[in-house]
Amino acid sequence: MIQYDTDMPLQEHFSEECGVVGVYNNGDIDTMAMYFALHALQHRGQESAGMAVTDGKKITYCKHTGLVGSVFTEARLNRMKGGKAGIGHVRYSTEGFNTSVNAQPLVASYAGGELAIAHNGTLLNTGKLCRQLKENGAIFQTQTDSEIFLHLIAHYSPKGIVEALRKMTEDIKGSYALVVLTKDRLYGARDPFGIRPLCLGKKGDSYVLASESVALDALGAKLVRDIAPGEIVEIGPQGIESFSIFEDNRTLPAGMCLFEYVYLARTDSIIDGIDVMGARVRAGKELARVAPVEADLVAGVPDSALSAAMGYSVQSGIPYGDALIKNRYVGRSFIQPEQSLRELAVRMKLNALKANVEGKRVVLIDDSIVRGTTSKRLVDMLKGAGAKEVHLRISSPPVTYPCYLGIDTPSKRQLISSSHTVEEIRRMTGADSLCYLPLDNLIRAVRNGTELGFCTGCFDGGYPMDIKACRSKGCRNFHK
Amino acid sequence: MIQYDTDMPLQEHFSEECGVVGVYNNGDIDTMAMYFALHALQHRGQESAGMAVTDGKKITYCKHTGLVGSVFTEARLNRMKGGKAGIGHVRYSTEGFNTSVNAQPLVASYAGGELAIAHNGTLLNTGKLCRQLKENGAIFQTQTDSEIFLHLIAHYSPKGIVEALRKMTEDIKGSYALVVLTKDRLYGARDPFGIRPLCLGKKGDSYVLASESVALDALGAKLVRDIAPGEIVEIGPQGIESFSIFEDNRTLPAGMCLFEYVYLARTDSIIDGIDVMGARVRAGKELARVAPVEADLVAGVPDSALSAAMGYSVQSGIPYGDALIKNRYVGRSFIQPEQSLRELAVRMKLNALKANVEGKRVVLIDDSIVRGTTSKRLVDMLKGAGAKEVHLRISSPPVTYPCYLGIDTPSKRQLISSSHTVEEIRRMTGADSLCYLPLDNLIRAVRNGTELGFCTGCFDGGYPMDIKACRSKGCRNFHK
Amino acid sequence: MIQYDTDMPLQEHFSEECGVVGVYNNGDIDTMAMYFALHALQHRGQESAGMAVTDGKKITYCKHTGLVGSVFTEARLNRMKGGKAGIGHVRYSTEGFNTSVNAQPLVASYAGGELAIAHNGTLLNTGKLCRQLKENGAIFQTQTDSEIFLHLIAHYSPKGIVEALRKMTEDIKGSYALVVLTKDRLYGARDPFGIRPLCLGKKGDSYVLASESVALDALGAKLVRDIAPGEIVEIGPQGIESFSIFEDNRTLPAGMCLFEYVYLARTDSIIDGIDVMGARVRAGKELARVAPVEADLVAGVPDSALSAAMGYSVQSGIPYGDALIKNRYVGRSFIQPEQSLRELAVRMKLNALKANVEGKRVVLIDDSIVRGTTSKRLVDMLKGAGAKEVHLRISSPPVTYPCYLGIDTPSKRQLISSSHTVEEIRRMTGADSLCYLPLDNLIRAVRNGTELGFCTGCFDGGYPMDIKACRSKGCRNFHK
Amino acid sequence: MIQYDTDMPLQEHFSEECGVVGVYNNGDIDTMAMYFALHALQHRGQESAGMAVTDGKKITYCKHTGLVGSVFTEARLNRMKGGKAGIGHVRYSTEGFNTSVNAQPLVASYAGGELAIAHNGTLLNTGKLCRQLKENGAIFQTQTDSEIFLHLIAHYSPKGIVEALRKMTEDIKGSYALVVLTKDRLYGARDPFGIRPLCLGKKGDSYVLASESVALDALGAKLVRDIAPGEIVEIGPQGIESFSIFEDNRTLPAGMCLFEYVYLARTDSIIDGIDVMGARVRAGKELARVAPVEADLVAGVPDSALSAAMGYSVQSGIPYGDALIKNRYVGRSFIQPEQSLRELAVRMKLNALKANVEGKRVVLIDDSIVRGTTSKRLVDMLKGAGAKEVHLRISSPPVTYPCYLGIDTPSKRQLISSSHTVEEIRRMTGADSLCYLPLDNLIRAVRNGTELGFCTGCFDGGYPMDIKACRSKGCRNFHK
Repeated sequence: MIQYDTDMPLQEHFSEECGVVGVYNNGDIDTMAMYFALHALQHRGQESAGMAVTDGKKITYCKHTGLVGSVFTEARLNRMKGGKAGIGHVRYSTEGFNTSVNAQPLVASYAGGELAIAHNGTLLNTGKLCRQLKENGAIFQTQTDSEIFLHLIAHYSPKGIVEALRKMTEDIKGSYALVVLTKDRLYGARDPFGIRPLCLGKKGDSYVLASESVALDALGAKLVRDIAPGEIVEIGPQGIESFSIFEDNRTLPAGMCLFEYVYLARTDSIIDGIDVMGARVRAGKELARVAPVEADLVAGVPDSALSAAMGYSVQSGIPYGDALIKNRYVGRSFIQPEQSLRELAVRMKLNALKANVEGKRVVLIDDSIVRGTTSKRLVDMLKGAGAKEVHLRISSPPVTYPCYLGIDTPSKRQLISSSHTVEEIRRMTGADSLCYLPLDNLIRAVRNGTELGFCTGCFDGGYPMDIKACRSKGCRNFHK
Repeated sequence: MIQYDTDMPLQEHFSEECGVVGVYNNGDIDTMAMYFALHALQHRGQESAGMAVTDGKKITYCKHTGLVGSVFTEARLNRMKGGKAGIGHVRYSTEGFNTSVNAQPLVASYAGGELAIAHNGTLLNTGKLCRQLKENGAIFQTQTDSEIFLHLIAHYSPKGIVEALRKMTEDIKGSYALVVLTKDRLYGARDPFGIRPLCLGKKGDSYVLASESVALDALGAKLVRDIAPGEIVEIGPQGIESFSIFEDNRTLPAGMCLFEYVYLARTDSIIDGIDVMGARVRAGKELARVAPVEADLVAGVPDSALSAAMGYSVQSGIPYGDALIKNRYVGRSFIQPEQSLRELAVRMKLNALKANVEGKRVVLIDDSIVRGTTSKRLVDMLKGAGAKEVHLRISSPPVTYPCYLGIDTPSKRQLISSSHTVEEIRRMTGADSLCYLPLDNLIRAVRNGTELGFCTGCFDGGYPMDIKACRSKGCRNFHK
Repeated sequence: MIQYDTDMPLQEHFSEECGVVGVYNNGDIDTMAMYFALHALQHRGQESAGMAVTDGKKITYCKHTGLVGSVFTEARLNRMKGGKAGIGHVRYSTEGFNTSVNAQPLVASYAGGELAIAHNGTLLNTGKLCRQLKENGAIFQTQTDSEIFLHLIAHYSPKGIVEALRKMTEDIKGSYALVVLTKDRLYGARDPFGIRPLCLGKKGDSYVLASESVALDALGAKLVRDIAPGEIVEIGPQGIESFSIFEDNRTLPAGMCLFEYVYLARTDSIIDGIDVMGARVRAGKELARVAPVEADLVAGVPDSALSAAMGYSVQSGIPYGDALIKNRYVGRSFIQPEQSLRELAVRMKLNALKANVEGKRVVLIDDSIVRGTTSKRLVDMLKGAGAKEVHLRISSPPVTYPCYLGIDTPSKRQLISSSHTVEEIRRMTGADSLCYLPLDNLIRAVRNGTELGFCTGCFDGGYPMDIKACRSKGCRNFHK
Repeated sequence: MIQYDTDMPLQEHFSEECGVVGVYNNGDIDTMAMYFALHALQHRGQESAGMAVTDGKKITYCKHTGLVGSVFTEARLNRMKGGKAGIGHVRYSTEGFNTSVNAQPLVASYAGGELAIAHNGTLLNTGKLCRQLKENGAIFQTQTDSEIFLHLIAHYSPKGIVEALRKMTEDIKGSYALVVLTKDRLYGARDPFGIRPLCLGKKGDSYVLASESVALDALGAKLVRDIAPGEIVEIGPQGIESFSIFEDNRTLPAGMCLFEYVYLARTDSIIDGIDVMGARVRAGKELARVAPVEADLVAGVPDSALSAAMGYSVQSGIPYGDALIKNRYVGRSFIQPEQSLRELAVRMKLNALKANVEGKRVVLIDDSIVRGTTSKRLVDMLKGAGAKEVHLRISSPPVTYPCYLGIDTPSKRQLISSSHTVEEIRRMTGADSLCYLPLDNLIRAVRNGTELGFCTGCFDGGYPMDIKACRSKGCRNFHK
């Protein structure tokens, strides 16, 4: 509706990374404490934040554009206190207009009572679903695909929420980690491939669901396990019960998003049994094996590539040190300066550490190259600070395909790897050499001996489902 | 949902006074100019403001809590520019939580395309309608009864918007002045009794719909006529077309809200052919006739009772003058002081004009007494300033019944006139005498020789419909 | 310093209208209650507000740009509570940059202790004084001439504050109503001509000083008397003591600003014994006598000219009524629209009352014409609403000279009366006739039988002092 | 003045860490670009920010409470553009009231023209100086000791600014890195011991002065050298000229603040020829030498202790890794939760990395222990995450004395090391062992073979001057 242009292939940009949390309080975690969990998930979305809380009879909610800390003023936070259960959400930053209507949780009243949902992921067949629902009289009031869940749950609800979630899942193509709140129950569901993460924690007799285990840490809860791909859990006064999305309990090959380990997740999270930092360190070691280079210093681009750099250093024996320092105080309020000063603005966030790099051959580890412009600036900066050589090493394969399953990637045209060879990219960045970690090595590093399966779509087009077939045309006019 | 308490008869407080505007631009009024119209209607609602605009293909909107001037920053206002048609809304101030979700226009995407509505009025049978709609799978995402319009229009839309508005009207009990926007049309509708006002203006070839004619003035448009009770208008490239809500074109006795003339409307508005200031002056004259008193000065409570005071002065021959001065700068940001200073806070908004009242017998005209507390303070203030006598004259009858049809009145218990005699009220206020204008006289004064019929519910219980029969129980849980 | 351009004759714009208040609490008025007094004086200055309070030992203060209601958040207001004495200030709105440094009270620590001052008025010989002070080592840290008071008081303080105020006065040329706070005393002083107003009130045993009596009303204090021209008062635990600025107790002819009665002061104020509304009504009557016209309606430009219009109506016998209605909700946040919509913006603040003016000959009373552009718009608006004739009557003489003594008037060039005849102005405004009230008549109307003398500088150049001789060149670089 | 309590020894809290910058533009650095330099110095002060700029004729300035990014809106920043020279300042965060009056630069107009200063450091003999100045008629309008500079420079200015700075220095006891702006010159001065840092950079023909070299990096300027202890530089159209504070050019033993290297400065700064990161790495190595321990992991407390941890790891051979992860999104807006949730709030900023620490013996490196409470929480967190042992190693000696020379340390009573033995502190923190780096080792590590001398006051009371003798009583009432 808002600024929606039917001529533009908006699906590529529609996808968003988000974070969800849910709490069922049996006396050990105040619903208001989800505030801490959302802070811990803030890296998954900075556009808006929200919580919905039930006292057992009715659902109260609050959501707004902004960071968790600014959305929840003291007065608002106090309204979220003392509930029986609740869910929360942070949403990825996009440039929007009146986007607070798209903030989650989405809350609705339907024939069966009240309902709130929070969703991380992307639906592919929104057009078709939306068309069908509208033909049945549904009206859409937001511009987020997550609203479809509300309609489908309401539609299938006469058989109960678990059954509605099951039925709904048969209709839906795409990725989702979902938390659902009714007046007296908390539900969690993860798509059949387990593309987006969702884990379960416990503190005393109380339960927590969250996108990443760091949210459990923030609540002082213990990580129990991850919600399995295709699993639905229902949490209520009687405890937790688990269901399969499929009536026949069949399971599909797992397709956990590999990029979560590479870049998205917090380094102190444990996802599907694999600790993220460990995965990154191992990727760095693999990288040192497959792409060695003679050098004096191994450094990582702060903050996400530091672990891989440590791994590279350990494996290669080249000393680890800092080459770039991040300015912790440059935030959102930074004014874009006029053209003549733009060159300076680049130095605002990162500064080269002259004392460490001067006269040295530096291996600079980054986790990925998307457009290539940042890499060029970093190489320039290090050379400007006196580095004799700069060898770029990327701890993942080239990002060649857009993500359709939950991450906001640029269109294919803007992905430098989809149209340039490694040597071309090297030349553009000005690096003395450039190597990527091959996909097999990355998978081995992350998997760490387990049998976990991944969605590798952005690297090799190997999505767990047929994207083209799933995406449906038309009727997308509830999207911006 | 939010703070909704099923045990409380919320209907009394649910009602709200609002203002609506719609523009169809054939080259003479930029849709952005609705900003001025909303400023002109700001007295009808200060909680939130919003606009939705179509460029012929898609609807863009912006709405938020706050005054028109603070909601529409320059950037937001510019997004409303250059449209083909648009609607706007201001909403009455209530204490709410996360109320921006209830701001209007409400915008939805449905099987027939996109739709935006703005509504002034109150629905009575929301419970029943809501239940039926939910049984058909509808989900409600706001806490305003206006959302029902969206669902009903979508439901009946296969036969076209005009037909949908007609059908919908058969289902709905209550009052409404409604503007509806589709991607290429503007619609207006007024309930069969014409309880809430809606007028039509023209500027060149462009059309305006608005709650009050002052909004037309603000746009430089001429008042053409009022939308008739039970009339639907459709405005498009071909011009304006008029339909009756009823297929048989039958009309009901008019029931225009009498209180609009007494207090609500701006004094420079013309509603249903009657200029508001004239009506107030004539009411003041009637009051002088039925409730004369020997005195030295006639004064009105600023601002709404000044016209009636002028009328009283002209009729009685007692000189008109100011007895109370309003501080123009005391706004919303006023801090409620601690108990010891509260006495002073009263003087902040109004100050007695000692030079005018000292030693004088004052006739103080007010338009109505709701709770009686303000009247007592005013009498105290005048006596404190040296007035020898204070004679309260009210230019309308006692407000004895709540309004169920669009105005936010206190519950019956809190209306002083529903439980106290005039003499009791006089004693409580400390006035030397107190008289109200009888209903017949008020009607005669407002009507001014025309045949206009009124809703006099708040004065004598004479609502144009059977309120009890219309109100339905249950299923109200989409309301706060 | 800031944006100060030495080539521009800034003195004309430097002058500012302000409001001051002072409280000495002997148990009857909490210093925090000055908040109410400042609200009552808000019309005298909307740029910044501030208070300084002493607890008997030290001075605490708070000041900021913004309206009283926004500067004093609850937390800040609470810091002003429970003091022994205090002063407050509101400052006129100008477009400034970093102007909070110029907000008053000005607070300083000097050899004798702590000192706070608040000033309404303008100094003429700032250049000379500033040069002398700097030669003695003084540094200036604000861009307001009021800072000179701080330096002079500190300089002369060894002999006590009263003596310092006396000595200081001998140095100073210009207008001032001044309140001064030390750790245990409150002082008030008014310039020898009494150009700017200052009155004294009492509540129980506590004292109040204020620019206008409405501030006393707001505190529930009684007006005792006005501070006399050239009087200094010292208020302390022992009560109030009065001194003359001159050692020989000589008095100069009074020169109270006539424009305070015409426009500046609140209509419910009593200044130097004359109630402002009465003065305005009498000016209206005089105007009807000297400039009669045959017409059907007398109306005033809201709000300041309404009283004069009433006077004109009473005297002429032509009925009084409203022709223009002010929109109470258009405030500071109003966005200046683009050129194409600017015509509409004019209607935002005032709207013509068609029902009252259509087909009528209207006498429109205004209090003054400064640039003439507003008058033209009003005449246009009334004619557009159907007025047959519009006769402009101004309840004061043409403003022909700038004010150098406390009011922010445009430069002489921009004052339409300084370069155009009455007939030329009439033609420009489009009025059918235009008459001003001659100065003698205005003085008679205001004076009301008393012997009060006035500064009539802006009307006839008759300032109470030789402006040219008093103004000094150079060394103005502490001004913006 | 504000909340000033004469009974409290305010000096301990008065001290503040700040950052300064100055630019003289000969065509290579727009004065507006100081915005970037202030961002780079933001870690030195988050309470307020400001800039003053001269266009060669007059000084324009802007300052306010808040972070650099929020103080300088686009409009304000544009006012700082295109100047000939300018200075900027960031100020340390303290809880204040109306503190914007204390923001720097301080700007004044005096007999010699206009003057702006920005100061990092603390004056000791403010009482005496202030008393003398007041006796000469000076008035103080802020609550910062830096105002004394303004008065002294004005006082001595007839002989020129350089001479005034010289003379002033003879009066002043304390630490200062000072930048001074006149309408056409930029000056820098550093106290005779060089306690606070100040360096000189160049870009093309333009000059920069800054507290740390990272500010030069941010402007794309090259570090030329540090301003020497007791040096004054004057920068103008003719270039740069250097003077000694002492007429006899004598030099005192250098007393550069050792704590800048330990904690305060940014890790990528080079101060007095020593790169901060290098100093920290070497301190870590020394620590490994003097306080070895058998362990499985060396980790640092982010961010300031990471370099020392790397040094410890290299020296000890124990693998380096992360044990604690910082949440980058927890900012100032964090709401202090109620007591029951406070335990959780601790986890907001730091989270233990279970995967890395579980079952391990961890050496946790921190740069200092002030109160001890944070250390206890970190040890708890690591043990909670499964660490078998936690050995605290501090890369500096115990902080036993307050700083009187520019850093805001708690009073002696609150410094845990001033009243507890190392073993007592170990027990309180729950660590398995605790060792500090002895002062000699720290000095050797920082000095790195140079002859640089340090102020080691906070560690051993070895201040470069006799603090007691220098501090003067009385007349402190210009301080809050």
